[in-house]
Amino acid sequence: MLHQEALSRRARWAGGEQVITQLMAKALANPKLVSLAAGFTDQQTLPVDPTRKALEILWSDPARALAALQYGTTIGYGPLRELLLQRMCEADGRSAAEMNVSVDQVVVTAGSNVFLFLVADTLLDPGDVVLCGAPSYFVFLGLLANLGVQAVGVETDQQGLIPEAVEEELARRAESGDLHRIKAIYAVSYYDNPSSVTIPAQRRAALVELAKRYSGDHRIRIFEDTAYRELRYWGEDTPSMRSFDRQGDTVVVAGTFSKSFSPGIRVGWGVLPRDLVEPVLSLKGNIDFGSPNFSQYLMHTVLTESLLDDHLERIRASYREKISAMMEAADQFLAPIDGVDWIRPTGGLYVWLRLPEAIDSGLDGPLFDRAVEEGVLYVPGVYCYPSQSRVLPRNMIRLSFGVPSCEEIRYGVEALGRAIRQVV
Amino acid sequence: MLHQEALSRRARWAGGEQVITQLMAKALANPKLVSLAAGFTDQQTLPVDPTRKALEILWSDPARALAALQYGTTIGYGPLRELLLQRMCEADGRSAAEMNVSVDQVVVTAGSNVFLFLVADTLLDPGDVVLCGAPSYFVFLGLLANLGVQAVGVETDQQGLIPEAVEEELARRAESGDLHRIKAIYAVSYYDNPSSVTIPAQRRAALVELAKRYSGDHRIRIFEDTAYRELRYWGEDTPSMRSFDRQGDTVVVAGTFSKSFSPGIRVGWGVLPRDLVEPVLSLKGNIDFGSPNFSQYLMHTVLTESLLDDHLERIRASYREKISAMMEAADQFLAPIDGVDWIRPTGGLYVWLRLPEAIDSGLDGPLFDRAVEEGVLYVPGVYCYPSQSRVLPRNMIRLSFGVPSCEEIRYGVEALGRAIRQVV
Repeated sequence: MLHQEALSRRARWAGGEQVITQLMAKALANPKLVSLAAGFTDQQTLPVDPTRKALEILWSDPARALAALQYGTTIGYGPLRELLLQRMCEADGRSAAEMNVSVDQVVVTAGSNVFLFLVADTLLDPGDVVLCGAPSYFVFLGLLANLGVQAVGVETDQQGLIPEAVEEELARRAESGDLHRIKAIYAVSYYDNPSSVTIPAQRRAALVELAKRYSGDHRIRIFEDTAYRELRYWGEDTPSMRSFDRQGDTVVVAGTFSKSFSPGIRVGWGVLPRDLVEPVLSLKGNIDFGSPNFSQYLMHTVLTESLLDDHLERIRASYREKISAMMEAADQFLAPIDGVDWIRPTGGLYVWLRLPEAIDSGLDGPLFDRAVEEGVLYVPGVYCYPSQSRVLPRNMIRLSFGVPSCEEIRYGVEALGRAIRQVV
Repeated sequence: MLHQEALSRRARWAGGEQVITQLMAKALANPKLVSLAAGFTDQQTLPVDPTRKALEILWSDPARALAALQYGTTIGYGPLRELLLQRMCEADGRSAAEMNVSVDQVVVTAGSNVFLFLVADTLLDPGDVVLCGAPSYFVFLGLLANLGVQAVGVETDQQGLIPEAVEEELARRAESGDLHRIKAIYAVSYYDNPSSVTIPAQRRAALVELAKRYSGDHRIRIFEDTAYRELRYWGEDTPSMRSFDRQGDTVVVAGTFSKSFSPGIRVGWGVLPRDLVEPVLSLKGNIDFGSPNFSQYLMHTVLTESLLDDHLERIRASYREKISAMMEAADQFLAPIDGVDWIRPTGGLYVWLRLPEAIDSGLDGPLFDRAVEEGVLYVPGVYCYPSQSRVLPRNMIRLSFGVPSCEEIRYGVEALGRAIRQVV
């Protein structure tokens, strides 16, 4: 219908249908399907009452209600940005001065994905390289594809990105003379999507040091995606990668209320190195002419009324039950199958599962249709690997426990066990 | 501080500070300043009560409240898209079948600027050409600059884009062999920003016909920006340019609730030709992973509860008073000055004013600082001209009557008159 040449290069790079769209089309084959695929938040624990309360409080002050309905600024609502910065500093146990950061570096967007896009669009040209874990968050990989940027996969383990593997890639590029193409390292630093692992403090320090040491005429930035930081169910919090960047010139932090509060309200944010504030805002103003102001006032009220932390307690308890249900079902239905194992998550929304090596978990492999027939939908792991990845295992799958109930989780994992046994 | 080479080409194309930022910095010089610069909507008539009512109704249905807080789809909330399409068809007095359009072609975004960006990013490569009126909406010109696209200015008059001037440009390009670089024609078809003119039906038909006739291997699209359609104070509505595109393959319509209801809620939309739906959504999913769902549910409720049309009556009455105040003040304080004239608006938010030819109205010219001293801020017309424009008059200014009160408008226009007299 449409000549591909009629599209921009960027649109062609963006490729065709999204993975999720394809999965959904497949899912229609079985209406009784349990989806362990979508990384959505739990529908049942969405903050209906806290939001109502915040709206009532916001609307009780006519001047604030008016301001919320008017245009905001490109950078976002000041008092909200103050609180966001304060929360980050508190979580990291450092003052803003110690973090070498000020509120002028905090930008609000309609979801953190938009923030990551703006930063990427500001820094990356076609042909540039971003080092990503293998595996990585697939929507970010899609975003890089849009920009004609090469996503180069770096080895990971149960502690996320391996600094030695990152250094190996940096050193090789330095030797071959194209280090200058490496513009950034991307990591979901807490409860990664899809692998669920959190990068420990020592590795964070090492990665920041590497980025600085290999920075030449241009800086190598670290894009630290903290989307799941608040979804911690067991164990201690870890200081952000940003807290290891004393000069504040290397790490770009992205955060969001989509996981911790509500994806429908859709407020994300980011903390920029000083030198990127002006170019990112210049681009942002032309693209969105300001993010929704109303939702920023709403989230500001949620924070000032202490409605977020109460809600977080509630959803952590709920997700803790769900992940426990998934682990219990996996122990019962999957562990007995030779060659199946997984990382036990302590936070986030995902379980990253390894199947026997011979099994191709992809949409065109034998397992996927069998799983749908048995009643369960998953994300084939292959979509989570950067386009340039030395490893590309076909036997990984991502399960999510965010949306389904404990019963559905149990049903889905059991169905998956049946499907795997049929193709082993 | 930052090496320009460290930025992407797009960021460099985006250029430095935004016009508005520069204006605001200048404005700080006089705190008693009346701003006739910002194109914002009137703060006093923002829909505090209708929004409260819609929120109460939305929150009275727990299932809908939950859904509003969850992720939506990339294309946007279905029932809202249905209503948007219905409203467009009703305004144009045609059925969807006659318009050759279906709801699958309607996309919702966080403001129509984002929609225009997504379409532009889908269709335009660096070096491509978009024909724009001279003058044109400056944020859209900035967006084209981001993309490395050439904005070529075409002559306009009191009826907007002149079809003969558009054809001349098309014919010249056809002759020189680079017609293929012209990818689109951009027009704010109702109460233009900044010129306030509405393109009459006959010209709309002629422009659509031209775009089709000169379309070769690729289509020349018309980007029809209808942001101000609802802000009609006198006279009849005009059918959209889209209604003259019987095949529906040429005109891309962008619309928004930012002017008609609330810019803070920030819901925009667009209607795409069929062949652009999939590529635009593919890009959109990677960039924003869905627009805010909550605001879409809110605007859907505003529409189903008939809260928009009542509100529109109210703001039309208020803006009618404001534009009358501005015209009265202009007749009194500006008309007597030789060489000053303007187009009398029948809708929208702007007055496009011509000064004596010798006066440079730019930030570095003699008038601007004088006007600030006298107590009024305006937008220098020079920012509203495409980068490649055969005409680039320095003596135009844009005034807006959206935000100030009638008293402030009178004060501001009188101050402007004093400033002009000092530099004549």
